[in-house]
This record gives sequence, C-alpha cells and structure tokens, in this order.
Amino acid sequence: MNIFIIGVGLIGGSFALDVKDTYSDVKVFGIDNNPEHLSTALALGVIDEKADWNDLGKADIVYAAIPVNVLCNVLPEILDKVNDEAVVIDGGSTKMLICEAVKEHPKRRNFLAAHPIAGTEFSGPEAAIKGLYANKTNIICEVEKTAFKLQERALKIFSDIGMRIRYMDPYSHDKHIAYTSHLSHISSFMLGKTVIEKEANERDIFDMAGSGFESTVRLAKSSPAMWTPIFQQNKQNVLETLEEYIENLQEFRDLMLKDDFEAIYNVMQNTNKIKEILKGITVKN
Amino acid sequence: MNIFIIGVGLIGGSFALDVKDTYSDVKVFGIDNNPEHLSTALALGVIDEKADWNDLGKADIVYAAIPVNVLCNVLPEILDKVNDEAVVIDGGSTKMLICEAVKEHPKRRNFLAAHPIAGTEFSGPEAAIKGLYANKTNIICEVEKTAFKLQERALKIFSDIGMRIRYMDPYSHDKHIAYTSHLSHISSFMLGKTVIEKEANERDIFDMAGSGFESTVRLAKSSPAMWTPIFQQNKQNVLETLEEYIENLQEFRDLMLKDDFEAIYNVMQNTNKIKEILKGITVKN
Repeated sequence: MNIFIIGVGLIGGSFALDVKDTYSDVKVFGIDNNPEHLSTALALGVIDEKADWNDLGKADIVYAAIPVNVLCNVLPEILDKVNDEAVVIDGGSTKMLICEAVKEHPKRRNFLAAHPIAGTEFSGPEAAIKGLYANKTNIICEVEKTAFKLQERALKIFSDIGMRIRYMDPYSHDKHIAYTSHLSHISSFMLGKTVIEKEANERDIFDMAGSGFESTVRLAKSSPAMWTPIFQQNKQNVLETLEEYIENLQEFRDLMLKDDFEAIYNVMQNTNKIKEILKGITVKN
Repeated sequence: MNIFIIGVGLIGGSFALDVKDTYSDVKVFGIDNNPEHLSTALALGVIDEKADWNDLGKADIVYAAIPVNVLCNVLPEILDKVNDEAVVIDGGSTKMLICEAVKEHPKRRNFLAAHPIAGTEFSGPEAAIKGLYANKTNIICEVEKTAFKLQERALKIFSDIGMRIRYMDPYSHDKHIAYTSHLSHISSFMLGKTVIEKEANERDIFDMAGSGFESTVRLAKSSPAMWTPIFQQNKQNVLETLEEYIENLQEFRDLMLKDDFEAIYNVMQNTNKIKEILKGITVKN
C-alpha cells in the first residue's frame, strides 16, 4: 500500500509513524514544500522515500496535513493527479471551505474530509510522534460524498491506529470546534502575550511560573503558519466565541471591582462541572 | 521530629507524604476543620495521627496549607500555641496580607512565609501525591524576619524534598504571581464557563475537545474555596493583569474584524518566544 503524506510535520508525520507501526506492507512517500523538512523526515524514518506531485498517480492513500488555506488551493490539484482508486484525506482544522473547494470536482468521491482531534503544541517533522492518534477522535464530514469502498479503506486505517470516529456536517464542525479548540488557542496566545509584555525585563520571575501557567500557555507555542489561516477561515465562529469569552472576563472583573466575591465563588463552582465533562476525554499529550 | 499539617489537602497532604518519604524519624499530625478529610488522610497514610489545636505545643514544624483568608485569621493563634523552638510555615498563594497579619506578633521569628509553586487542579486529601514538590520552586518572603536556626531547619526540609529556593519581598511576590498564576486561573475558569454555556445542550460536542482544550481549561477544576480568597487578597494586582489580558483579547478581535491576518500572524509569532521562557520550568504535573 502506497501512502503519500503531504506535509511531513506533526500531524502528517505522526500519521506516517502510526501507519508504519501498524502495517508491514506500507510504503510511505513524503511531499513537502520545505526540502529540509523532507530530508529530516527521511532521516528520522518518518517517511520511506521523498516524492513530488508527479508521483501522486501511484498513491493508494494521500494524507494532506498542511495549512488550511493551502489545502483549499491544492486539494483540487491533488484530486486531478491521483488514480481513480485512491482516497485523499485531509487533516485540516476547518471543514466548510475545504469541502467547498472540492464540491464540484469530478473526483469528489475520492476525497474524505477529516479532522483528527490530535496534536501537540510542536511542529515540523521532529514533532512527529508514534501513538499521537491512539484513543483520539476523528471527525469525518460529508462521509456520504466519498465512495463507499474508499470510506471503508480510510476508516479501517483510522480504526487500526486506535481512533474513534464521529460524523458531523462541516457547518456544525466549524461552529463547535471554534469553542473546543480555536478559542483555547487564542486564550493561550493572549495569556502568553500579556505575561511576556509585563515581565519582559524581569526574566527571573518565570521562576514563579508553575505547571498551571505552563498548562494554560502551552498552546501559545503553536505554529502561526498553521493557525493564522484557521482563524481566517473560521472567522465568524471564532469571533463569536471570542466575544463571549471577553464578556465573561469583563463580568468577572466587574464582580471583583464590586467586591462581590460570593458571586465569584459561585461562578467558579458552577464552572467546576467541567470536571465531569472532561472525564470522557482521553488525554495523552 | 513532630510535624503538624494544618489543612490535610493537596498542598498539606503532599508535603506530609514527601516528608515521610524523606525522613524516618518524623511523626506527622493532621489538623483539619473537616473531620472527614482528617479521617481520609489517616486512612490513606497521609498523616500518622489526628490532632487538634491544643496539641500544637509539641510541634517542631507546623505547615499550614489552608485558604489564605483563614491563614490571616489563624496564624497569630497558631504562633500563640507553638513552643519557642517551633517553626510555622505557610503555603499561601498570596504573601502581603499574610505577612501583615503576623507583623507585630511576639513570635514573628517563629514564622516563615512561603509559597511553593506546586499543585494540581485537584483538592482534598485524596489529591495528595508523593513527589509534588520535587524540582519545584519555593518562594520565601521576609526570610530575615525568621530566626536563623528556624530558617535553616525549614530550608533543609525544602531542599531534602527536592525544592529550589527563591527569596522575594511580599509586594513583588503578589505583583508577579498575579501574572504567572492567578491570571491563568481566571483565563481557564472563564474559558470553561464560555464553553459550558454555549454547549450546554450539546454534550456530544465534547467529543471534539482534545488535549489542547483540556490543557487550557484544566485549572477550571480548581477549588473555589481556595481561589476566591486569593483573588480577594490580591485584588489590585489581579485586576491589573486581567485588564491587560482583556485588552490583548480585544486587540486580537479587532485585528480579525479588520481582516488583518498578517498582524495576527506576527502577534502569534512574537508570542512563540514563550517556548524559550518556559524551557527553564520543570513541569511534573
């Protein structure tokens, strides 16, 4: 089985490692517009062979894990190049514009829109790790638009590397993911910015930062090249969540200004129920 | 050596476990106004014996890990009760009002003001874990006001359980800790609130939450009983950080509204330097 990874970074590279670990009969080809990343991926054993767009005809599976704006541009071209039996899967964090980009493509049935809820704050081929996908959820959009045999092939791989599958329409995906992922990134980036600005001249005080700060600011290490187009593509949903988040922070501030610490206690206690909600989430990274 | 833990929860209980693991000649007594917590701590082996305030005279070391408002009220009373050779250490997340509370106490030299930068989002004696303090920083305030022999005894214990020591005045402590700890808790609580409110009727979407959301929202599981008085005692500093955080979020929103994604890219790239800053932090929890 020939698997082509387009974008040999954290997401694409980890997929390659899991697939190689699961099957003995796969050959993993890498395509990346950064030649250094491609060489690193080869040296690290993330891929078996470098390849380019003209080799896509021999792919059984293509896994494209590149910024979502680039995905929209190149997915039609990828579909043009693959053979009729190949399945092209994306790993983008938005789904509406991506599905839109291939809607009318004659090979639409060769495409499966997916969003693996898996990742770390690191990027590039060195960030690829085995087991990233195990026990994680893969959101599949518009599954009915993919040829049945190709759905089956893709879903078997996801299942074999340990993923749960959830089906969702692109509109709902983008709306909800703004809350459960995109907003977290903004809250983390702005927390990092606030602290860096204030404490720029007092590096020692980072001795005072513990695991709590590290945890809330972790996502501020994420790649701007991946995240800028995500915020751009999901602008309306992200703005809505951000507005609500700002309002909640302002309310908290106002309660403090009024010395209404009983209300603050209650707000925090109500929010403690996130414990129960999170119990269902498997966190490995 | 008789060690009295006042408040046998996460912070006090973990200290007990580390001390018992490090020394063979200690006996750990527990005091807690919640009798269930005390029984649980005994059953779990966190403490060796239940005790009450009238037993404090036989303490060599008292470690008080209770809400900071309670600390301010009871520290003078604890100092009244201990013998002249005992050292009383607190673990509070604020330092100005605590130091103020015992400033004029005749046994001020028996008190050491400390803030271990260690913790998890859990609370109660079941949350106590061995090794919580290893490789963590302990901030000591007004060390010069503690009797030298008692400083030495306390610092040897901190060092033996694996802590780094940093000295700081209470004013600077409270100012900086607002950025590196207190603000993280608010950002996390309000993130949890925003998502819970929006997604209250769609529990399924928490399948879409991954490790990123879990990480940023983790602190929203923290104890309101511990955190409300912290925000109250450090009100001015916390308000200042919160205001700056809100401004940064508003700026981010405005850049999105203007479609200035180049600026958004740059803001995130600048904030990526948090990577370097965090490298020095040891994170175990």
